[in-house]
Amino acid sequence: MRVKVSRKAHFNAAHRLYNPEWDMDKNQSVFGLCNNPNYHGHNYELIVSVTGDIDPVTGYVMDMKLLKDLIKAEVEEAFDHKNLNVEVPEFQTLNPTAENIAVVIYNKLKPHLDSSQELEVVLYETPRNFVTYTG
Amino acid sequence: MRVKVSRKAHFNAAHRLYNPEWDMDKNQSVFGLCNNPNYHGHNYELIVSVTGDIDPVTGYVMDMKLLKDLIKAEVEEAFDHKNLNVEVPEFQTLNPTAENIAVVIYNKLKPHLDSSQELEVVLYETPRNFVTYTG
Amino acid sequence: MRVKVSRKAHFNAAHRLYNPEWDMDKNQSVFGLCNNPNYHGHNYELIVSVTGDIDPVTGYVMDMKLLKDLIKAEVEEAFDHKNLNVEVPEFQTLNPTAENIAVVIYNKLKPHLDSSQELEVVLYETPRNFVTYTG
Amino acid sequence: MRVKVSRKAHFNAAHRLYNPEWDMDKNQSVFGLCNNPNYHGHNYELIVSVTGDIDPVTGYVMDMKLLKDLIKAEVEEAFDHKNLNVEVPEFQTLNPTAENIAVVIYNKLKPHLDSSQELEVVLYETPRNFVTYTG
Amino acid sequence: MRVKVSRKAHFNAAHRLYNPEWDMDKNQSVFGLCNNPNYHGHNYELIVSVTGDIDPVTGYVMDMKLLKDLIKAEVEEAFDHKNLNVEVPEFQTLNPTAENIAVVIYNKLKPHLDSSQELEVVLYETPRNFVTYTG
Amino acid sequence: MRVKVSRKAHFNAAHRLYNPEWDMDKNQSVFGLCNNPNYHGHNYELIVSVTGDIDPVTGYVMDMKLLKDLIKAEVEEAFDHKNLNVEVPEFQTLNPTAENIAVVIYNKLKPHLDSSQELEVVLYETPRNFVTYTG
Repeated sequence: MRVKVSRKAHFNAAHRLYNPEWDMDKNQSVFGLCNNPNYHGHNYELIVSVTGDIDPVTGYVMDMKLLKDLIKAEVEEAFDHKNLNVEVPEFQTLNPTAENIAVVIYNKLKPHLDSSQELEVVLYETPRNFVTYTG
Repeated sequence: MRVKVSRKAHFNAAHRLYNPEWDMDKNQSVFGLCNNPNYHGHNYELIVSVTGDIDPVTGYVMDMKLLKDLIKAEVEEAFDHKNLNVEVPEFQTLNPTAENIAVVIYNKLKPHLDSSQELEVVLYETPRNFVTYTG
Repeated sequence: MRVKVSRKAHFNAAHRLYNPEWDMDKNQSVFGLCNNPNYHGHNYELIVSVTGDIDPVTGYVMDMKLLKDLIKAEVEEAFDHKNLNVEVPEFQTLNPTAENIAVVIYNKLKPHLDSSQELEVVLYETPRNFVTYTG
Repeated sequence: MRVKVSRKAHFNAAHRLYNPEWDMDKNQSVFGLCNNPNYHGHNYELIVSVTGDIDPVTGYVMDMKLLKDLIKAEVEEAFDHKNLNVEVPEFQTLNPTAENIAVVIYNKLKPHLDSSQELEVVLYETPRNFVTYTG
Repeated sequence: MRVKVSRKAHFNAAHRLYNPEWDMDKNQSVFGLCNNPNYHGHNYELIVSVTGDIDPVTGYVMDMKLLKDLIKAEVEEAFDHKNLNVEVPEFQTLNPTAENIAVVIYNKLKPHLDSSQELEVVLYETPRNFVTYTG
Repeated sequence: MRVKVSRKAHFNAAHRLYNPEWDMDKNQSVFGLCNNPNYHGHNYELIVSVTGDIDPVTGYVMDMKLLKDLIKAEVEEAFDHKNLNVEVPEFQTLNPTAENIAVVIYNKLKPHLDSSQELEVVLYETPRNFVTYTG
């Protein structure tokens, strides 16, 4: 009996979208307002889901408290109230689009899970824009 | 790295459910209140998702602004503040159930996407009723 | 100890905004898309609040079940899956704007409450537009 | 044309997590606050989805009213305002974790569906914790 | 410049509504399902609002972190994952209706605020039922 | 018949909280993570409400389209995708707390309303923190 368990979390951060190999005009035409060199920001809403077998002894796929703590340690402490471009190592050379942030979060969480478990990361950049990555 | 990017949109419309090959009694027993010949209406909430590879140059699967504009051109301008049965050509001969509306939206959007991209349409008819179509 | 108790409800309806004393051009310039003569529709979300003293015997200001039943009898049965302009008597001569619908709901509910109780009606026409009427 | 139709429902219940084969200390260390022998409770939000072909005669995969009634008969009447551990037979010997509740709901609903239809159960234990079971 | 600052919080609890001076039949007829002697439960959502002057030095009416910590100390630690009737002293002799819970929360928080500040407590018992108390 | 009409809007921005008359340690102890000199950001959700009499000719207190356009011109174009501290003149010498942002929005909108109309500004900094200003 494989079940997917999901946990919502939250972090606030500043970011800017641009490609350092392009000039300002090209960045402006591709990224528009998101290219503001003074940064803008978001309340990112995150849903992390782990799919695995129900442990018949506990009735849990994974203790939600452990999943909450894992998200806090790996994602919230690294990203919350940060400037993603300036302060988060993964985005020194990677454009912090929602797509890339979701992939980075996936890669930070996956090693902490059992190899039999599948991981899904959903990241809301705004209430109307979100992305999903499953590896 | 395939990622699903999703965009929420919105339109209001009037509709009526009925099968013109049935008499009023049969329509009433199958469609109940939804068969009201004077129409009723909904705030339809729409989530359009496109799954594809992240473009390493932009960090985007698809520019959300383009997806927003595509939904506006193909769906909102065609359906918003309209009577679906009376004013939308696709529903002249097709019952505008949530299922059929989702299929019509899918068929309107799909030709505008890259053939390597997958499309998913989620349509909320009310906050408690919604449908999902993936082709 | 006066407490406000609130209950959410829901109805779907079609409507059209127009002033019969104006010609089509004037109606179009004032009401725009909302003037569509074929109607459009909404999922109206309603929050009805009653403020009164806590009854020390029950701990209730008003039994929420009674409030739910009152909303069902007076509002949902009268408006749900209806065409407001065509089928609801109050809107035969009154433009069914959100403002006017809220006033009509208030006037239908108020006589059923204790004279010592205050009534507030909040009506969402869309998730982004709503009105509040307190008499 | 296979479409997934989804219906949200709701029930409130009390429960307690524990394994009767463990002593109190072990239960406390695994289940923490959820092990409170006096019970705690939740507003469970449920999303039941049925995937099947659109019936060309009605435009429905399944009449949402029938799905609503099925959820009411099989889930709400059995679980709403109940103590899951004490009053619901399935949890006499099964720990009422969100995972196990979702599996029980799935098993109660599945026999009522057409064999060609797929079922998905999503259960929110809190706004931040939820599980998904697809059989 | 008086501003109202609001903070959302959450707790889960079991409860039962009844009046010990009434017999079982009377309790059943007034409180219905909520009278279940085995308890049921809710995810209570709480919004605490403090109205006061903006401190020109900080730009705050009140540090939201302090408000969050106050709610945690006074409300969440006292009520979360508890049986309100059995484990919370205030409800030994007071029926834990939403109205009474809101008043108890108000009375626990008010002494910690500045006398120049006003307090409002909004308590959601379910997503459709909520109460507001302002002293 | 005075009715309050409300419109939701949205903007994303970066900001930093600090008092330039304090040293870094004092700013850190008061504003914590919000004092990050590299900025962080939010999806601000805004609800603007105007209370006035229903115009008997239109049935409107105020055309929601005009209110939407006013919010766009005065708030969204000034704040969206901006760094509040660096790019918005009002916050050159005013700490951009939620309280102060709400007051600035109020002061920008009020002159555009009829003197008989009242204005209320609700600003969500996060889904759990929000402020209300009514002048």
